[in-house]
Amino acid sequence: MGGAEKALRELVRSNPVLANPTRLAIMLLLAMRRKMYFSELQKALDLTPGNLGSHLRKLEEAGYIRTKKVLTRIRPLTLVILEAEGEIALYRHLDSLRKALRSLGA
Amino acid sequence: MGGAEKALRELVRSNPVLANPTRLAIMLLLAMRRKMYFSELQKALDLTPGNLGSHLRKLEEAGYIRTKKVLTRIRPLTLVILEAEGEIALYRHLDSLRKALRSLGA
Repeated sequence: MGGAEKALRELVRSNPVLANPTRLAIMLLLAMRRKMYFSELQKALDLTPGNLGSHLRKLEEAGYIRTKKVLTRIRPLTLVILEAEGEIALYRHLDSLRKALRSLGA
Repeated sequence: MGGAEKALRELVRSNPVLANPTRLAIMLLLAMRRKMYFSELQKALDLTPGNLGSHLRKLEEAGYIRTKKVLTRIRPLTLVILEAEGEIALYRHLDSLRKALRSLGA
């Protein structure tokens, strides 16, 4: 029980930026793809532009991603790029999540 | 990638009551112990009474736990009891979390 409690106390104190399921999903997707267009992310996760934009701002403020305008002949596109700091924070968060899930022996 | 996106879309829509790491930790602990005194939960997760109380209210409103006053010779104690509905919701949430974590192949 001592180890389980330690894992659960770590979960309680886990990263509030990544605790949000939508931001966690965005970061997991970026960890697979390194960079994605705003519209690709929106489609993959079925989010409104406003909702995705607000979560991306929080991730950018935390230094976990950066965004870049890409000019195309038709219209400018927003590219969302995973930062090294974001990847480190993500793996740390996943580790604390996994330990907490394992606490249940499941 | 299709399966991963499905798992991540499910994560985005996952249970907001259980998405909070503190409430998830409370529920994981209760899933192991079925019932715990308020003071035991507080000590195990290192939470202030106000913080624990506010999370328990949200879990109670969702029908996931119930609380019961237990009279002792010294002082009344609050017992926190896991409800069947809470256990079902917890396992469903853990399943969606695990699928999302697996999406990264990690």
